[in-house]
Amino acid sequence: MCGIAGVFGHPEAAKLTYLALHALQHRGQESAGIVSSDGTRLYGHRAMGHVAEAFSEERLTKLPGDSALGHVRYSTAGDSSLRNCGPFWVDHALGPIAVAHNGNLTNAETLRRTLEEEGAIFQSTTDSEAFLHLIARSREVTTVERIREALKRVEGAYSLIFLTDRFLVAARDPYGFRPLVLGRLRDAWVVASETCAFDLIEATFEREVAPGEIVVIDANGVRSLQSQPAREARCVFEHIYFSRPDSVVFGKNVYTVRNQLGRELAREQPAKADVVVPVPDSGVPAAIGYAAELGLPFEMGLIRSHYVGRTFIEPSQSIRHFGVKLKLNAARSVIEGKRIVVVDDSIVRGTTSRKIVKMIRQAGATEVHLRISAPPTTGPCFYGIDTPTKRELIASSHSVDEIRDYLGVDTLGYLSLDGVLRAAGAADGRGFCHACFSGDYPVGVRAQGGG
Amino acid sequence: MCGIAGVFGHPEAAKLTYLALHALQHRGQESAGIVSSDGTRLYGHRAMGHVAEAFSEERLTKLPGDSALGHVRYSTAGDSSLRNCGPFWVDHALGPIAVAHNGNLTNAETLRRTLEEEGAIFQSTTDSEAFLHLIARSREVTTVERIREALKRVEGAYSLIFLTDRFLVAARDPYGFRPLVLGRLRDAWVVASETCAFDLIEATFEREVAPGEIVVIDANGVRSLQSQPAREARCVFEHIYFSRPDSVVFGKNVYTVRNQLGRELAREQPAKADVVVPVPDSGVPAAIGYAAELGLPFEMGLIRSHYVGRTFIEPSQSIRHFGVKLKLNAARSVIEGKRIVVVDDSIVRGTTSRKIVKMIRQAGATEVHLRISAPPTTGPCFYGIDTPTKRELIASSHSVDEIRDYLGVDTLGYLSLDGVLRAAGAADGRGFCHACFSGDYPVGVRAQGGG
Amino acid sequence: MCGIAGVFGHPEAAKLTYLALHALQHRGQESAGIVSSDGTRLYGHRAMGHVAEAFSEERLTKLPGDSALGHVRYSTAGDSSLRNCGPFWVDHALGPIAVAHNGNLTNAETLRRTLEEEGAIFQSTTDSEAFLHLIARSREVTTVERIREALKRVEGAYSLIFLTDRFLVAARDPYGFRPLVLGRLRDAWVVASETCAFDLIEATFEREVAPGEIVVIDANGVRSLQSQPAREARCVFEHIYFSRPDSVVFGKNVYTVRNQLGRELAREQPAKADVVVPVPDSGVPAAIGYAAELGLPFEMGLIRSHYVGRTFIEPSQSIRHFGVKLKLNAARSVIEGKRIVVVDDSIVRGTTSRKIVKMIRQAGATEVHLRISAPPTTGPCFYGIDTPTKRELIASSHSVDEIRDYLGVDTLGYLSLDGVLRAAGAADGRGFCHACFSGDYPVGVRAQGGG
Amino acid sequence: MCGIAGVFGHPEAAKLTYLALHALQHRGQESAGIVSSDGTRLYGHRAMGHVAEAFSEERLTKLPGDSALGHVRYSTAGDSSLRNCGPFWVDHALGPIAVAHNGNLTNAETLRRTLEEEGAIFQSTTDSEAFLHLIARSREVTTVERIREALKRVEGAYSLIFLTDRFLVAARDPYGFRPLVLGRLRDAWVVASETCAFDLIEATFEREVAPGEIVVIDANGVRSLQSQPAREARCVFEHIYFSRPDSVVFGKNVYTVRNQLGRELAREQPAKADVVVPVPDSGVPAAIGYAAELGLPFEMGLIRSHYVGRTFIEPSQSIRHFGVKLKLNAARSVIEGKRIVVVDDSIVRGTTSRKIVKMIRQAGATEVHLRISAPPTTGPCFYGIDTPTKRELIASSHSVDEIRDYLGVDTLGYLSLDGVLRAAGAADGRGFCHACFSGDYPVGVRAQGGG
Repeated sequence: MCGIAGVFGHPEAAKLTYLALHALQHRGQESAGIVSSDGTRLYGHRAMGHVAEAFSEERLTKLPGDSALGHVRYSTAGDSSLRNCGPFWVDHALGPIAVAHNGNLTNAETLRRTLEEEGAIFQSTTDSEAFLHLIARSREVTTVERIREALKRVEGAYSLIFLTDRFLVAARDPYGFRPLVLGRLRDAWVVASETCAFDLIEATFEREVAPGEIVVIDANGVRSLQSQPAREARCVFEHIYFSRPDSVVFGKNVYTVRNQLGRELAREQPAKADVVVPVPDSGVPAAIGYAAELGLPFEMGLIRSHYVGRTFIEPSQSIRHFGVKLKLNAARSVIEGKRIVVVDDSIVRGTTSRKIVKMIRQAGATEVHLRISAPPTTGPCFYGIDTPTKRELIASSHSVDEIRDYLGVDTLGYLSLDGVLRAAGAADGRGFCHACFSGDYPVGVRAQGGG
Repeated sequence: MCGIAGVFGHPEAAKLTYLALHALQHRGQESAGIVSSDGTRLYGHRAMGHVAEAFSEERLTKLPGDSALGHVRYSTAGDSSLRNCGPFWVDHALGPIAVAHNGNLTNAETLRRTLEEEGAIFQSTTDSEAFLHLIARSREVTTVERIREALKRVEGAYSLIFLTDRFLVAARDPYGFRPLVLGRLRDAWVVASETCAFDLIEATFEREVAPGEIVVIDANGVRSLQSQPAREARCVFEHIYFSRPDSVVFGKNVYTVRNQLGRELAREQPAKADVVVPVPDSGVPAAIGYAAELGLPFEMGLIRSHYVGRTFIEPSQSIRHFGVKLKLNAARSVIEGKRIVVVDDSIVRGTTSRKIVKMIRQAGATEVHLRISAPPTTGPCFYGIDTPTKRELIASSHSVDEIRDYLGVDTLGYLSLDGVLRAAGAADGRGFCHACFSGDYPVGVRAQGGG
Repeated sequence: MCGIAGVFGHPEAAKLTYLALHALQHRGQESAGIVSSDGTRLYGHRAMGHVAEAFSEERLTKLPGDSALGHVRYSTAGDSSLRNCGPFWVDHALGPIAVAHNGNLTNAETLRRTLEEEGAIFQSTTDSEAFLHLIARSREVTTVERIREALKRVEGAYSLIFLTDRFLVAARDPYGFRPLVLGRLRDAWVVASETCAFDLIEATFEREVAPGEIVVIDANGVRSLQSQPAREARCVFEHIYFSRPDSVVFGKNVYTVRNQLGRELAREQPAKADVVVPVPDSGVPAAIGYAAELGLPFEMGLIRSHYVGRTFIEPSQSIRHFGVKLKLNAARSVIEGKRIVVVDDSIVRGTTSRKIVKMIRQAGATEVHLRISAPPTTGPCFYGIDTPTKRELIASSHSVDEIRDYLGVDTLGYLSLDGVLRAAGAADGRGFCHACFSGDYPVGVRAQGGG
Repeated sequence: MCGIAGVFGHPEAAKLTYLALHALQHRGQESAGIVSSDGTRLYGHRAMGHVAEAFSEERLTKLPGDSALGHVRYSTAGDSSLRNCGPFWVDHALGPIAVAHNGNLTNAETLRRTLEEEGAIFQSTTDSEAFLHLIARSREVTTVERIREALKRVEGAYSLIFLTDRFLVAARDPYGFRPLVLGRLRDAWVVASETCAFDLIEATFEREVAPGEIVVIDANGVRSLQSQPAREARCVFEHIYFSRPDSVVFGKNVYTVRNQLGRELAREQPAKADVVVPVPDSGVPAAIGYAAELGLPFEMGLIRSHYVGRTFIEPSQSIRHFGVKLKLNAARSVIEGKRIVVVDDSIVRGTTSRKIVKMIRQAGATEVHLRISAPPTTGPCFYGIDTPTKRELIASSHSVDEIRDYLGVDTLGYLSLDGVLRAAGAADGRGFCHACFSGDYPVGVRAQGGG
């Protein structure tokens, strides 16, 4: 997964992009990069690690100019090496251009093979590079027209920002899989994956970049090119788990949707219990909604540590559930002697959930009822979410009863797809992609190397 | 403030100490250190930064032996330089000894002057070093007796762990200001500031080290020396704010006490409102209790970022409430058009609270009612909590009405001291120090340089 | 300037390449990189800094396989950023390929423009990337044939190593500007810029890669393709200054050539003096030859520091000749009261030489006679040596008498071009490039972005 | 071994100390530290590594004030950990004081035991800390008198600089084992181990601090206290190997002494050979003298690499003489077919010399004659030079013939002690310590933990 952001027309463009990336850090923690433009040329830096590690004050001063674009990345495929860090920036016949990409192309392999056969060389294994080749090879006479043409040749999920020495372009695939929003900061324009980036830099949220839209921002202001319409297929998992709860995504506030997911879950899958406990932090809003709907007490029975370092040393006499313990600990006084409803947003492989359940039992729970604010995850995502292969998804090969037994819970209840869509404001069942739950993939699949 | 931990009799003593310090990281983020003993000599390492940064796998292998002690520190006074990092370890006439200290001596200045006049040299500005001088200068013939004698000469707050080549000592001042607990891990003994450290390494909680007790752990097991009794004065702020909610501190679970603080607060200071919102993370349990007691909805209307780096770059065109914004953002959908009760655990200078209130108003709250799960903080702490000087404490010179106006809230309500003590299980008002609220200081004050 | 090395057929290919690069460190200190092949794919790492900093033991274990190629670089033009570090490795239609390049193309600009017009994108400003584009765009059916075709389209100076998943190619331009040698290490083949790399890894020197030759090394052994013959034009400055004195370059030992340059200089430009002092380290062999030829005492009157860090802090009250002083200091006892001959290999801008002369005068020299073991440098190099522009070269616009006055020496003597060629073993004046002295450029000039 | 430097009365005291330490880097590469004084308090920083690594520009700005003292250290004994890095600075009854120490106390163990019995605690294993304890425990009423008294209680080798908030003191033991010189920089006074530090900062050399002298520098200028006289015993090995050749040490220029050592060696141990080759860099001046005296050609037949990193990765199929090869390579053209005299300054264990000899034989030497510009090293140094134990010194248990056979040379010749003393200007054999050659130790031995 990735987070992307861009600024046009602000004297501190690189710094604002840096802050925007910080607000989007949850979308990718592996690498961070920024490219800026001073109207003449591009300047860039990218590094492994978090935004705050990748950039120093000194580094940012080497990214001058009043426009910039940035990228945080968690690789969905391919190497997690510096070569694959975004943004990418290159020179082509019409000048310099950089790109930041969130999503995953489904025809990436074919495209790459075709481009290589035409003589292209690839320095990374990312989709981002393919966009740049398509632009460079286009016969159109302006870069904007070349971008438009290039986008016609790619399939799958993409929210994109391009930066040249003269303008910035924001674009979204016709399905609208990944979010992308447009905002203003006085005279400057800003683009970001989520509105939480605007809140930090005090930009105002103007509107979504529409599915299939190409927004061009230059000295003359903003203009919009519409590309082909398509069946809209926004990723419902952005609401369930991925986006930050304080963001407005696809027109709805994420926290509210999650709370509503919990309420729907309570109606579909009530439990006889003494207390509702979320798996922090992502399970919190749904657990609050669940508890409120049933009139049950809500308590933070699992305490999350703020200090989980990325390299951690394990004792050789291994501690039970070590990985989970570093992150979570049960508050015994909340749990002991009680029937507990645990609310989480998903079960992927089941291994972590199982450890959490055991931890809660050891803290003295008399019953454990697990409630998931989404349907069973039965298929992988080909549009940018870093899910494991189908084989590893416990729900792809096990019934709910089998999963319940594996996890060692007294009852297990998932929210239905209808419930999810109601909470997301799509009671008619349209406008969202839910392929990982339903198997209904909007675009054919053969993807890899997204960003 | 500081966190301390010790292990005796385990082949991976340094690694377990490292994990225990990780669990105690909230008690001090400035520096971390570990000293180990292999029965012949001591080995040590200390560094600025978090535990996970200060120690690598390789570093830990250079701390051999089956006993160890560790220290995380946030300086309450003096330099925050490597010189002042704990633990301290020295050689004296009876051999090597190390010390880790949580607390603050009130006669530190006098002691230091006396020791210097006797020819002592000080390499740090910490209290820890004074303990070692007193031990080295004692005429007693065993180190344990020297420790006992040394403790008679110091005044104020201290929870201590000493390590020599042969034994480990845990001690607590007669007032019992700071917590210290004893646990077991199979054949090994462990000591730590809070029980959450035991949970991580899967040790069992045996008991508090009692106020005024000296516990000696060596090859023969555990024995206890009792020093002079005193009026017990456990720090009530450990319950209100400082300790981790999953810990058992002073015999009570912290989460439960906080939840109870919220309930007491609701009874004393109810509010007509639509939703109760905590200032995360410390305000969460009290807010849950507050909402439950009044039957109001509880929502996470302020979203906390997990990625706040310690060095952060601010744009020169400064963003309003920048510092707070990096850490918190308001979820507009929760707040807009609503009357909000905000629950926090304390107001210190008032500057941060004021920013949070403005953020909530900007998110569309129609009314903001601030509730604090403790009384006004009117005096500094001389026993180890890093409060600012009296002059900087807003409540030391302003009435509740004045603070309300300064913060820009519609109403402001503090919990009474009686309410606090009831929640902490001391309805008779005894056993706790609450000097920062009441001005009733158990020990005379002239402190500095604690740890 | 750059140094390059390659290994084929050794289980520790990356480690040997690392050592070879270490031996070639004098050819480029800005960045270092290695790409390895395990017969299936390529693995790479590159970083700013010296070889020993850029690679850790752990890093090298991530470069598996039995062939590898490496690059140390000092940028002759363009950014000194990570983007421009070698080696480059890409995927193209026939598979993965990497390249390490020493030299400078004279038609780089034209090539780049042409390639961009054909749709190519450039991620760096180096010549290396152009080679890879030419190979990817070739219509030949094998990579070796594509390399051969690509080399026909480039002009200028290049010694090259290519690595694919199956073979290694070493090639040199038809002029043979830059050195490249072939060696054996038991069953493995090695290629390097200079033989000193072979000495360290205990490979035996087999022969030069000939000007215009393409050597292909694969599982079947070594075979040679000859490209078009040209007027040979080996860089005589490799002998005068650039190569390491223990190397055999262009068939002659460098130390011996330098010593001979000193002897020629003594015959052409004798001096009445008491002692001969070299500018260390490059001036040492010529100074020894000079002193020996004239029967004058040779002394190390300038002491060189071994600890010159790359980032150095200067006092604000600036010290005279600060930069030179960090590196050199005069041994007063050698110099005081004496007539000194100072021997150096070149004068570029004259600023450093002037500081050295003042330092020697301050140490008490009664006369200073400067002797240069080469002719005046009157023109820039377009074939890979990092000389400044013509305007900055003091000898391009000043007579020997003017330079003498500027430097403040009593006499100044340069070696003639004939003398240089005699020392280099080319008494007939053929086989070498001496354009920077003579203005006789073997290939037309419009270069930039070499490596 | 160590290098020390101090500055009094200059607005950039810490920066000048930093530069002085850089010039003294050859005296200690393990750690570096600086303490400064602004007239009120002391500021300090110390770190592992070279001076240029240990200090950044930012670090230096945190060392304000117009006096400072610095220390570079290569531990002669004890841990090489941060705890043992100099300088040390402490508070005692009369205020803050710091010390930098070069030398080794012979009564360190006894002193330490006595001090510990009096109640002192030791945080390091260095001699430096003992000085500070003695000062703190003195009953004298001024710090200067306390220093004088403290120095009466220590035995062995010490050149010292003390810094307080008001003055700087330079002192040297009555034997004068280690060098210490006094200089001026306009109105400021400077002290350093060697004059090469003055050359870099452009201070003028005033005079040696005399053996047994205590120099006090404060706002009133410089005054001198003389302590007890003793048999002077300057370390002759400073001239043979340790000091920088451009320094004036013990009143003589080091380069000149070394050249003279070579001439004496030539007279005592001539060789029938074709060429004289030094082991660079320390053997160069003696080799020049040797060659000149016999009228033989001098050539740099061993080339030294400038890029030897401190962490280096060795291939598992170990290369012969790997360690030596990283540092030195033979220039075959100089050596092949010749009878070679190799000149070095000492043979310690013999292992390195043996590898060098083999390398020269492999380069084609027909004969190898090794000449050492000092007598056989038969005993360890107890006064600060980091020699191995007697058992490891090859000359302590083997005859010259046996060593010759072990090294595989045709002939081996050492310079006599008389020859050394003549070269050092002490033809009467007085004034120098030569215990490592002669066994004549000026002070009784039981030392450890020097600096």
